[in-house]
Amino acid sequence: MKNPHLEIERKFLIAKLPRNLDHYPHNEITQGYLALGRSAHVRLRKKGRVCTLTFKRGPARAREEREIHLTAAQFATLWPATKGARLTKTRYYVPHRGLTIEVDIYGGSHGGLIVAEVEFPDLQTYHSFRPPAWLGQEVTGVSDYSNVRLARD
Amino acid sequence: MKNPHLEIERKFLIAKLPRNLDHYPHNEITQGYLALGRSAHVRLRKKGRVCTLTFKRGPARAREEREIHLTAAQFATLWPATKGARLTKTRYYVPHRGLTIEVDIYGGSHGGLIVAEVEFPDLQTYHSFRPPAWLGQEVTGVSDYSNVRLARD
Repeated sequence: MKNPHLEIERKFLIAKLPRNLDHYPHNEITQGYLALGRSAHVRLRKKGRVCTLTFKRGPARAREEREIHLTAAQFATLWPATKGARLTKTRYYVPHRGLTIEVDIYGGSHGGLIVAEVEFPDLQTYHSFRPPAWLGQEVTGVSDYSNVRLARD
Repeated sequence: MKNPHLEIERKFLIAKLPRNLDHYPHNEITQGYLALGRSAHVRLRKKGRVCTLTFKRGPARAREEREIHLTAAQFATLWPATKGARLTKTRYYVPHRGLTIEVDIYGGSHGGLIVAEVEFPDLQTYHSFRPPAWLGQEVTGVSDYSNVRLARD
């Protein structure tokens, strides 16, 4: 059974972008970090018009994650505190055998960086996943590609 | 003019509890910490029936503080993440020359610890404050008495 507070995911570089990427659903994401502890952090995110606050703790492969929606007013009060720890990206949702591969194209100071993430509903799906050829090197847990790190650089 | 995001305060031990403390307004506070960075943290608090999420950054005397109200459902989603970093206290609000002295009596593993805090609307009030005789040693910025530290112990 899926644990609603456990996030299981893998992250990859891209060997070759899927054709017609713009034809897939996509949206602009702006996010920033409120507090960065050694093993836990609190993220603010605006995806399209949806604002969220997310707590994450643990290693990249399997993280405790707790998320709430924020009103625009709640978001606006907290957002200034993320100054110096923000990033923007466009996220494309590419379906693949019942899963969704999220392709993130970064903007701002990381303009051009492209990373793909796949989230799994359970450990069985996680272990049986065969990356399609267009995904390149796996970078799960590589700190150079963590959003926390990218937001600070 | 008051900066709405700057918190200026001093903290004291108690030389002698005010008489009839129970006659002053008071409420139960339960709080926990979501993420503890080196200089910033995110706190969840339930005071009576009011739930808040607060970001604080900077030294004890003058801190950046940003706070939002949470619904009971938002609070319930995030609260489990504070496990291992929580504390409870009863707060009494004692008026003093136009200011309010907050007397916190801690429960749980710190049962019996008593600390008083005074928040000032501006630096002038801060500098001109003369503590009443019932306040004892000042412990502003002393980490032994920081709530973050107490929550972790």
